[in-house]
This record gives sequence, structure tokens and C-alpha cells, in this order.
Amino acid sequence: MITVTKEVETLEKVKQQAEEWIREAALYIKKEMKGSFAVNTKAHQHDLVTDVDKNVEAFFLEKLSETFPTHRLMGEEGSFEQIKDLSGIVWILDPIDGTINFVHQESNFAISIGIFLEGEPIIGFVYDVMRDELFSSFKGNGAYLNGEPLPKLPKNALNESILSFNAGWMLKDRRLEKLVHSSRGIRSYGVAALEMAYVASGRLDAYISFNLAPWDIAGGYALLQEVGGKATNFRGEALNFLEKDTLIAANPWIHDEIINTIYNQDNKQ
Amino acid sequence: MITVTKEVETLEKVKQQAEEWIREAALYIKKEMKGSFAVNTKAHQHDLVTDVDKNVEAFFLEKLSETFPTHRLMGEEGSFEQIKDLSGIVWILDPIDGTINFVHQESNFAISIGIFLEGEPIIGFVYDVMRDELFSSFKGNGAYLNGEPLPKLPKNALNESILSFNAGWMLKDRRLEKLVHSSRGIRSYGVAALEMAYVASGRLDAYISFNLAPWDIAGGYALLQEVGGKATNFRGEALNFLEKDTLIAANPWIHDEIINTIYNQDNKQ
Repeated sequence: MITVTKEVETLEKVKQQAEEWIREAALYIKKEMKGSFAVNTKAHQHDLVTDVDKNVEAFFLEKLSETFPTHRLMGEEGSFEQIKDLSGIVWILDPIDGTINFVHQESNFAISIGIFLEGEPIIGFVYDVMRDELFSSFKGNGAYLNGEPLPKLPKNALNESILSFNAGWMLKDRRLEKLVHSSRGIRSYGVAALEMAYVASGRLDAYISFNLAPWDIAGGYALLQEVGGKATNFRGEALNFLEKDTLIAANPWIHDEIINTIYNQDNKQ
Repeated sequence: MITVTKEVETLEKVKQQAEEWIREAALYIKKEMKGSFAVNTKAHQHDLVTDVDKNVEAFFLEKLSETFPTHRLMGEEGSFEQIKDLSGIVWILDPIDGTINFVHQESNFAISIGIFLEGEPIIGFVYDVMRDELFSSFKGNGAYLNGEPLPKLPKNALNESILSFNAGWMLKDRRLEKLVHSSRGIRSYGVAALEMAYVASGRLDAYISFNLAPWDIAGGYALLQEVGGKATNFRGEALNFLEKDTLIAANPWIHDEIINTIYNQDNKQ
């Protein structure tokens, strides 16, 4: 019993620490962006986002080795190569999710972190840097947007739902077209982590993608667990967070209906 | 000369007054939304948005008749029926553009106003209520985001561009699919006025729709004029702001390329 309590206390410290580092990284990102506005060519911005991505990952690697030396980091910018399993505590990080938005919109990008213990998501963060919207979660303690609790996802039906997926996926698999007719509307924001956070907060009812890496979705997946969301690959199988996969992250009331709508051959629209 | 100066002064007063009323309307909208969260059923929210739409339009009608009794209002909620021409000063208002977002996301909706003098856009406002982003313009004096000037739209190419259109349009006209391949990415936000403001501010390079009313686009159109944007219907013709039409609102460097990509039969992807 005492051991359990201590572990929870430690993980709460981990969460607090992660939030501090996210805010520190966000300040760095904003400073770099502001500097780059002076130059303001797209080519320069593409270089910038690559540098910022790498530097934020290096920042987290350094902080972890100082503060939690047993924790491992799986990040987009190279540190994923050392991670072959999820034993112990693993931080799954995307320093900037939505890099095209970063370059073109100077907004609509996010820092995403999922902290896993023995393969289970314990802590989730998705931070919309420019809008200062911090989505966070702690296993068993709910999910939050800027400190306000997010409610459990309510009962829903596909024909009342707003879905999000990239138009390009529709060209790759025409069966997605059925969702255009079956839903109330389609959106696309170009930033997977944030789109998963929007599902967790009910702004979207589902987010669908054909090709996502663990770091794109780990933070959002942790959030979803706390509001009763359901996230699987297109075959309805659990995500493994070690390789790229397809994704349907959704309100639990419509998740299976989406798979059926896409893949049920008898489905008529 | 004195007459001209007086007219400019008057129109600047009109702009100042419009901004005050927009902010007053936004406070009302937020108050109504907050009240409605307590009830929080989608059906209730749909009723709410209808009421709020009507009340905001009535608010502007009343304010205009008190302050600028010669100005006319063309609004989504009924006052468009009296407007058969654009002589004199006409306020073209969408009290809430993005009503589905209003209901489902409680964000991503906008108040849009274009103020036209003898058919020409003089003043534009698009206000993202929940993010407090006010896009505004005054003819010959530039466009602004929260008081900061927006630069003229830079030289661009389609293959480096982010476009926005609804996935549903792609099913209605398959030629839009070419744009998925020809561009850097497709987004969709479900709020025409804001998507036009994003084109004006360079967050998007083009916004495309098959069916928009004058009140959806008048505010954004005014903004676009001030940054060198180009907005026409799909045939490349000027918009008339008296009836529904198709829309391509774009960075001027890619506007014609978009029409050519969609409609040029010889175009190969």
C-alpha cells in the first residue's frame, strides 16, 4: 500500500515536471518563431522547424537524464531508434506536431507527450502553443483543458458527428467518402495531436488517419482514455505505440459505426 | 475636397462604431453560450444558435436605425429580403458564421461584417469570438489582426500552398481532387468568414467553396482587397454580393492557377 502511494506521488511529480518543461519548450519555440519572422521566407521557416524540433527533443533528453535518469524518451527526431519496447517509463514525444502549419500558419501546431508505464498511458499532454491551450491527463484522475475538467464523452450518433480527416486519405481509399455522407461535417486541421485532443474535448467526434507514428498520437491517446474515448487502428485492434499504424480515435458511441461504415461491404449510402 | 475629407471621417466613425457593436455582440454570444453549457444538449444548442443569430441581427438593425438611419443591413436572418441593390451604404452581416462549429465545438465561429459604399467594400470585420482574433480593414488603409498590420500577400506557387475546402465539394466535383495533388495540403475549418480571413493573413493560400451567400464572404472580401488577395467565382467573374455564388478566394499568385487546375481539360496531374 505504501509502495503504491509513493509511486503515485512520484508520477504526479513527473506530470508536474513535464508541464514545466513543456511551457519552457513553448517559450523557446515562440522566441525562435518571432526571430524567424524577420527573415520570413518559407525555405528559412522549413529549416527553422527542423532545428526547433531537434532542439526541443534534445532539451527533453537532457532534462530526463538529469531528473529521471531511468526514464526513456521516444521522440520523432531520432531518439525513437533506441526504443524497441515500452518497459519501465517511456516518454513519447513529438516536439512539434503539425510542422506544415508551423511554417505556413505560425499557429495550429502542438507539443505532444504521452508518458507510459509498462506500456500503459499514465500521463498525457497536448499543448497548442500559440493559443495557450493545454490539454492534460493523469490516469484515473481525468483529463483537463487549462485546468478545467473535461467531461466524459456523451452519447452520440454518426449522423450528428463532426469528423476530421485529410482529404488526401479519401483519394487513397474511396470508402472514406461514405463518411462525408454519413456525418454532419468533415474538418481537417493538419495536426494529429491536436485533433485527438479535440476528440477528447468533444470539439470533434472522431479523427481518422492512415499513417501515424507513436509520437503523433501518444499524448492524445492518454487524454482519450480519461474521457472514455476509443482509439484503435482501422482493423479495430489496439495500438502498440512501437510502429506506425492507421488510426480511428473517436467518441466511443460512434467508433465501431465508423469502422462498419468504411469496411462493411453491404453498407449502402 | 472638404466633402471627401468629411466622408472619410464619417466612414472612420462607422468603422469605430461597428467594432464597438461587434465586441458588444460577442459578449452577448459568449454569455448565452455559457448559460447553455448548463443544459448542454445538441438540440438545445441548435435552438440557441438560431436565437442568438436572430438577436444579434436585430441588435445591429436597431443600432443602425438609431445611429446611421440611412444605412441598410443585409443579414442572414431575414433582413436580406429587403436588399435588391447595393446603392448607398449597406452593412452585410453574418451574426454567426460557422453555426455547426458553434454548436459542436463552442469555438471556430465568427461575426462577419462587410460595409459597402455604392457596391464597393470599404470596411471589413471578421471576429473569431472565442479566440479574440479581430481581423479588420479600411479601404486604402490596409488590413489588421488585433491592430497589427497584415502584410501584402507574398509571391507563392500552388505546390507550396495550403488550401481549404470542404471534403463534400470534392464529391460533388471530382476535378477538385487535382488540387489535393497539386498543393502542399488541404485544410477545412467549416467557417467561411474565418477561412477568408486566414487567406488574408496568409494562414491559408486559398479558400474554395461551391455555395456561399453574400453575408458569408463580405467581411472577408473587404479584408482581402487590402492585402492584394483575389476573390472571384469559379468562372473567374467578379462577385456581386446580391446572390449566392461559388468562390475562390486566394493569394493572387495562385488564384488563376487554381481555376486552370480545376477546369483546364488538358491539365495533367
